[in-house]
Amino acid sequence: MSSTNLRPTDVLISEVGPRDGLQSVKAVMPTANKLLWIDALVAAGLREIEVGSFVPAKLLPQMADVAEVVRHALTHPGVTVMALVPNLRGAEAALRAGVHKLTLPVSASEAHSLANVRKTRVDMVKEVSAIVQLRDEIAPGVKVETGMSTAFGCTIQGEVSEDDVVWLAKECAGAGADEVGLSDTTGMANPAQVRRLFDKVRAAIGERTGAAHMHNTRGLGLANCLAAWDVGVRTFDASLGGLGGCPYAPGASGNVVTEDLVFMFEAMGLNTGVDLDRLIAAREPLKRGLPGEPIYGMTPEAGLPKGWVPHRVTV
Amino acid sequence: MSSTNLRPTDVLISEVGPRDGLQSVKAVMPTANKLLWIDALVAAGLREIEVGSFVPAKLLPQMADVAEVVRHALTHPGVTVMALVPNLRGAEAALRAGVHKLTLPVSASEAHSLANVRKTRVDMVKEVSAIVQLRDEIAPGVKVETGMSTAFGCTIQGEVSEDDVVWLAKECAGAGADEVGLSDTTGMANPAQVRRLFDKVRAAIGERTGAAHMHNTRGLGLANCLAAWDVGVRTFDASLGGLGGCPYAPGASGNVVTEDLVFMFEAMGLNTGVDLDRLIAAREPLKRGLPGEPIYGMTPEAGLPKGWVPHRVTV
Repeated sequence: MSSTNLRPTDVLISEVGPRDGLQSVKAVMPTANKLLWIDALVAAGLREIEVGSFVPAKLLPQMADVAEVVRHALTHPGVTVMALVPNLRGAEAALRAGVHKLTLPVSASEAHSLANVRKTRVDMVKEVSAIVQLRDEIAPGVKVETGMSTAFGCTIQGEVSEDDVVWLAKECAGAGADEVGLSDTTGMANPAQVRRLFDKVRAAIGERTGAAHMHNTRGLGLANCLAAWDVGVRTFDASLGGLGGCPYAPGASGNVVTEDLVFMFEAMGLNTGVDLDRLIAAREPLKRGLPGEPIYGMTPEAGLPKGWVPHRVTV
Repeated sequence: MSSTNLRPTDVLISEVGPRDGLQSVKAVMPTANKLLWIDALVAAGLREIEVGSFVPAKLLPQMADVAEVVRHALTHPGVTVMALVPNLRGAEAALRAGVHKLTLPVSASEAHSLANVRKTRVDMVKEVSAIVQLRDEIAPGVKVETGMSTAFGCTIQGEVSEDDVVWLAKECAGAGADEVGLSDTTGMANPAQVRRLFDKVRAAIGERTGAAHMHNTRGLGLANCLAAWDVGVRTFDASLGGLGGCPYAPGASGNVVTEDLVFMFEAMGLNTGVDLDRLIAAREPLKRGLPGEPIYGMTPEAGLPKGWVPHRVTV
């Protein structure tokens, strides 16, 4: 690997494209292409990858091969292999498949919770509790993260109260979640709100405060990531080529583009552990696996600046 | 006007589209369309507009009607009418036309200075001095701003040293510029650099520190504006529909989109004085005046969020 990884990273970029991206497009990427794409992401230096969802294949045919994808991802040493699970049944399958980390969607908006997982928020917290118990029994080393959807606003119910977000963060931590992330599922977040809400959640649950999952729906994705960085967030979800959104939040679109996010942090002198040239090269297997699908990214289009030197320790 | 303007604004959005935008596209917008567009910008609540450049029409035919455009813009009470002038001759014409504020491009990069205005940086500072003297003689109420191009990097020479930027800011202030803004002409700025450089310039020239003029070339435009806001910048250049760039900085593109910038600040609870619905409506006369020209903006495409309430004092 490149010399980037010889010093500790300042920021962890959690790549969600193979899950969040692929499940939001109609086309099904063939398994062989998924594996090549994941290999390219690993080669670029990404060290946490959400590789798929454990959901019934009849609901999301894009994820039918998730166990095989997990098996392949596990052959890469040093990579945290994550999967999304909406319920206990999915969690059991993911744990049996050998993932290192589970992520569970828990909606701050009751309306979105019912639309997304057909459960109330309270019932979803019970599910988190059951999943944590199962994890303790059969795979105690595995981490459980909850990703709080619609934490910054909801396209169905509109505003989401900050008290609800803090309450739900406490509930999730109380149910045993190791990390509680906040997601701007709908692209409604603004930097002041991001700072305020992460501060409040950290005051409530301390070091269990997890990742920022921001969308670029209204162009504020990177500004919101910067705001989260400013208040101590160190893990950021992003999707190569900006692939993905949420099919159950009408009007939502546009994950933060991994390439632009890495460029921002590296340009700031922070070590992401990611090599930007290789990251941009990882768009090729994505394009080959999803012919005709639009992918985004300002940095890949503009190219790296003249005189660009990644901020890394060379040996 | 709407109730937005009944309390002081927290942020001044300086619209540069009619100058920076129009001079960077090949098509020439007819004068009548320019006037309708400016009327729509004023109706949206914009209170500072860079309406054109005083440059020879054979160099920039897009700006041949600048005096007429200024004359019309001056009929709007409460609007600061700005024009760009590259030299003393342009300044004299602009002052005779009655503008309220001049902006002069002064490049931090010697290579860009020679390419853009065919003068060294030192010679350009002399020009600033001569323009300030002329202003004192014939129009003492007019403000003179320098906009420091390539302050964050240059596509021709690569890195631009921060010492050069601070030195040039002092020179411009010493030559009598009322405001010294910093421009990311080439889209190479990052938030850490923006904070550092505005802090250094403010330490050197205090309250003469002027606007942030950011580009979105690599997607960091709004993050860089947020960073500038965090260190006390209160004036931001932006262009409706993201029109414009710099034709003499190869590879540079993409002014910050006014609509997205206003959305960010308003969502943060800051009063820009701008009505977002009317601002989005001001895209129509722009489109009609430049048929077929691509214009950008994530917020206009996504629409305002459900439950959106602009942060204004209503009476």
